[in-house]
Amino acid sequence: MSVSILDLIAVRRDGGVHSRSELDRLALGAAQGMVPDYQLAAWLMAAYLNPLSPQETADLTLAMAASGERLDLTGLPKPWVDKHSTGGVGDKTTLVLTPLLAACGLTVVKMSGRGLGITGGTIDKLESVPGFRTNLSVEEMKDQAGRIGLALTGQTPSLAPADKALYALRDVTATVPSLPLIVSSILSKKIAGGAETVVLDVKCGRGAFMETLPAAEELAGALRSVGELAGLTIRTAITDMDQPLGRTAGNALEVKEAIRVLAGKESGRFGDLCVHLATVVMEAVGESDPRGKVNAALSSGQALAKAKEWFAAQGGDIQVFESENWQVAPVQITLAADHSGWIERIDARAVGQAVVDLGGGRKTKDSILNHSVGIETQVEVGSQVESGQPIFTIHAATAGDADSVRASLQTGVRISASPIDKRPVILA
Amino acid sequence: MSVSILDLIAVRRDGGVHSRSELDRLALGAAQGMVPDYQLAAWLMAAYLNPLSPQETADLTLAMAASGERLDLTGLPKPWVDKHSTGGVGDKTTLVLTPLLAACGLTVVKMSGRGLGITGGTIDKLESVPGFRTNLSVEEMKDQAGRIGLALTGQTPSLAPADKALYALRDVTATVPSLPLIVSSILSKKIAGGAETVVLDVKCGRGAFMETLPAAEELAGALRSVGELAGLTIRTAITDMDQPLGRTAGNALEVKEAIRVLAGKESGRFGDLCVHLATVVMEAVGESDPRGKVNAALSSGQALAKAKEWFAAQGGDIQVFESENWQVAPVQITLAADHSGWIERIDARAVGQAVVDLGGGRKTKDSILNHSVGIETQVEVGSQVESGQPIFTIHAATAGDADSVRASLQTGVRISASPIDKRPVILA
Repeated sequence: MSVSILDLIAVRRDGGVHSRSELDRLALGAAQGMVPDYQLAAWLMAAYLNPLSPQETADLTLAMAASGERLDLTGLPKPWVDKHSTGGVGDKTTLVLTPLLAACGLTVVKMSGRGLGITGGTIDKLESVPGFRTNLSVEEMKDQAGRIGLALTGQTPSLAPADKALYALRDVTATVPSLPLIVSSILSKKIAGGAETVVLDVKCGRGAFMETLPAAEELAGALRSVGELAGLTIRTAITDMDQPLGRTAGNALEVKEAIRVLAGKESGRFGDLCVHLATVVMEAVGESDPRGKVNAALSSGQALAKAKEWFAAQGGDIQVFESENWQVAPVQITLAADHSGWIERIDARAVGQAVVDLGGGRKTKDSILNHSVGIETQVEVGSQVESGQPIFTIHAATAGDADSVRASLQTGVRISASPIDKRPVILA
Repeated sequence: MSVSILDLIAVRRDGGVHSRSELDRLALGAAQGMVPDYQLAAWLMAAYLNPLSPQETADLTLAMAASGERLDLTGLPKPWVDKHSTGGVGDKTTLVLTPLLAACGLTVVKMSGRGLGITGGTIDKLESVPGFRTNLSVEEMKDQAGRIGLALTGQTPSLAPADKALYALRDVTATVPSLPLIVSSILSKKIAGGAETVVLDVKCGRGAFMETLPAAEELAGALRSVGELAGLTIRTAITDMDQPLGRTAGNALEVKEAIRVLAGKESGRFGDLCVHLATVVMEAVGESDPRGKVNAALSSGQALAKAKEWFAAQGGDIQVFESENWQVAPVQITLAADHSGWIERIDARAVGQAVVDLGGGRKTKDSILNHSVGIETQVEVGSQVESGQPIFTIHAATAGDADSVRASLQTGVRISASPIDKRPVILA
């Protein structure tokens, strides 16, 4: 195999075109450890500098999806859907969207990740719920999805193992920010997980990987074109991540907020986003009144009931639906506006960093999380505030911890003397 | 160290400029195994696609030279010289040039390599001489050079270990043919070996790495400019490798030919090249009558005597200077011209491949050589031949081996009906 891998590296180096069978060889070699890391690393750098075409990216996606086990949803009610977010601060969308779609009759099977840096992870959030199991086997996933229409697990090493190997190498070879590699990584896991229709939420702004609208549009466009070449039905949304999403950032705080939204107790930008994404999916699967169906699933309590069913199925304590008196941080400190005016900016990155500094996010892959800590944001860009009115509540393990993030949170907020428009959560 | 290596890979990836200290870190990391192969591989591919500038190449050269032990020639008579050839078929120049320069009063300390593929290696040739030791230690090298002005050894792992690590990786990551990486690899070993003046023989033609004159000129120019930035006195020659160099290709056959040239028993293109390169070196070190001095060292027998002294110092049997009746292949078969005319072409690659196929060259790094086999070429481009006149003598282990290379050798020769000019061995 060694000689042909060398040829394959040379093709990429010289800006040539890979065949599907070449990419199959690469993906299988990576998955099975047959191609040494240094050859994969050389190929990754060549692919960074001579990017894969959309067709090559689709072929790599399919090759990685085929590199290990694949979740076969045959027998479960169609359509089979999944969602993905590129990650942000306070992004608990999966916690609302997946039971909402399951309540609408779709089969939702999803693998989620853990957080790293300022970007939170769904698995971390769910693990704040006592008893919640996030390590379902492939068989348990299929069985549960068959019973209740929804199953969610952490990364399963047997699905798309080539992506796992290549991703780990990209992280240490300065080849992460390559659009075709990002796109194939995202989509290969969706295909291996059995999805046919996928909604992709591309975050844009200070708290996201893509900071500008053109960059986010480029990623969304690549996801659509490659996804369709790979045989998926793809919908994308570009959504705001300049300010934190919703009222909370921090693991248990976000689960509580998601439950309030499912229960109709809270509305606003975060709830709007969930309804929008659910509507987009329902439209994609051919529903004639997508928004009506989504709104009915929420207002009837079906989505909330589905979430309870889901938590119970995965061993989670459903008392979390009855009260917010769980995983409560010992210290709550409020930061207030130091003058009156209109909120011009709440820096999502500053809020995300504060959560990490409080122990609610990972500085390294091995960090151990404190699920109870986080930041509650009482205002949004465009809110009118009086001097002394609360802006943030810091939920911390100790008063010292709370103090340590105070200054950076304060510099993340700007209050204008003149009115500021509210910002839409859906950008494109 | 991991984070800064990642930054360093990103600098190269983005076409930035490396500082000397960055390249020191890379070279030391490679030499000491502190930087994992996959990071070196990613950097190498980035450096292939975003080539190092001449200054960066000089800095990398110095960094690799400083990555291990360095041969300190202090106390030995100056000037300290070395030569390097980019390799070809029948290229036994080192065997004549180094004793010739030592006979002229220079100190010559040289590391040489083994052959791979059609390109022979000086160490293989010397190992055809019974008893010849090619694994001198750094101390033995310096001691011998002090006594007789000349020492030659195989690659010493303690000198320029960064080059050894990077070279091994280039070989398996499709990053060999990068001019700055080639140049720094060649020059770093010269500097670590203590040389101050280096003559570089860039081979050009079918039997060489550089097949065209522009490609050879580019390499020669890069060697000169980087070498001078790195503080060396550099001379380059571009010499013909379209036809084999001299009369023989094959290990013992080449040693015998070199001895004949040193003894004044044979003249022609190969001897001319040795005199030219020696003259260039003598000129570079400030000799007022360089050619006269070189010719005198040859015609007086001093060069031959120096070669004997050298072989003896390294344990080689000096009976090889008295007779050619050693390492004689059991089978000699002559190939004759099938019609009369003028030799238009003798393909160096075909001859080199025949030597490999006979067992005299390496197919892989682990091949075991037969030192006695090879090809003798009785004519050169421009020679007039009669039908039936010998063109090649195949020296083989068996008649079957000899037969197996007959056809390819024959297709490597073209005889023209009209006169063909002889070709100069020095191209530029």
